[in-house]
Amino acid sequence: MRDAFLEDMSVGQRFGSGTVRVSAEDIIRFAQEFDPQPFHLDPVLAGQTLFGGLAASGWYTAALTMRLLVEGEFLPAGGIIGAGFDELAWPIPVRPGDDLHVTSEILAVRRSKSRPMQGVIKVRNLTINQNGEIVQRAVGNLIVKARSAEP
Amino acid sequence: MRDAFLEDMSVGQRFGSGTVRVSAEDIIRFAQEFDPQPFHLDPVLAGQTLFGGLAASGWYTAALTMRLLVEGEFLPAGGIIGAGFDELAWPIPVRPGDDLHVTSEILAVRRSKSRPMQGVIKVRNLTINQNGEIVQRAVGNLIVKARSAEP
Repeated sequence: MRDAFLEDMSVGQRFGSGTVRVSAEDIIRFAQEFDPQPFHLDPVLAGQTLFGGLAASGWYTAALTMRLLVEGEFLPAGGIIGAGFDELAWPIPVRPGDDLHVTSEILAVRRSKSRPMQGVIKVRNLTINQNGEIVQRAVGNLIVKARSAEP
Repeated sequence: MRDAFLEDMSVGQRFGSGTVRVSAEDIIRFAQEFDPQPFHLDPVLAGQTLFGGLAASGWYTAALTMRLLVEGEFLPAGGIIGAGFDELAWPIPVRPGDDLHVTSEILAVRRSKSRPMQGVIKVRNLTINQNGEIVQRAVGNLIVKARSAEP
């Protein structure tokens, strides 16, 4: 659904995405800039931590998820503008070689009372690996444009 | 507080961080890789959107916040390992030239019943700009190591 307005959105709509392959190089490069901790930087040191091996920063998973969403099936007319999240969780680590995709479902659609030309939708985004395991669970609130001010 | 164990942590403890200057170049570079939307990529196009000018991707703000935390005053012995967030919000946009820092406060400390050598702490991290405005509000749950299995 491209160029979707508030009026086009309804609870229960589902959307998919493409797939991204995660590499050790990219996990390490991201961590060097944003999350320089041993379990995200060094496969040998990572083996001695809670993670038991190199794992992606959750923020790298979140950033890759955003990229998949922007290039995915669901594009609101004004873009994907997140006001925030009610939940963001990383149930299991992302590992080098993982193939990730995202599935999204609209949970709520609400027009703004104070700004009737926009609304807020609640969307659950699940980031899933090649084994069907959920590596990130997020429930976000997006600001979307309305086509008209009339409900 | 470096190398802090579960036993060293208590509700109400507060921690600070250094400061990072946000540049237009870095906002755009991050967006090109992870969040390629006009309001994060192009100052002119961004002026015609809800943002009214170039704004950082929320995920860039989140990633910078992580960097400030890792280099900040509070380092649990096992590292900063986030299991997830109860809340993550971006109340106002981050702009080129902003100087960001983070303040953290421990809201809850709980030993794991099933794994007594670890626990979960709830931490509120506020990312604040040079005007004292909150640009990111996050409440996260961190997995921390205990010094001993005895409460």
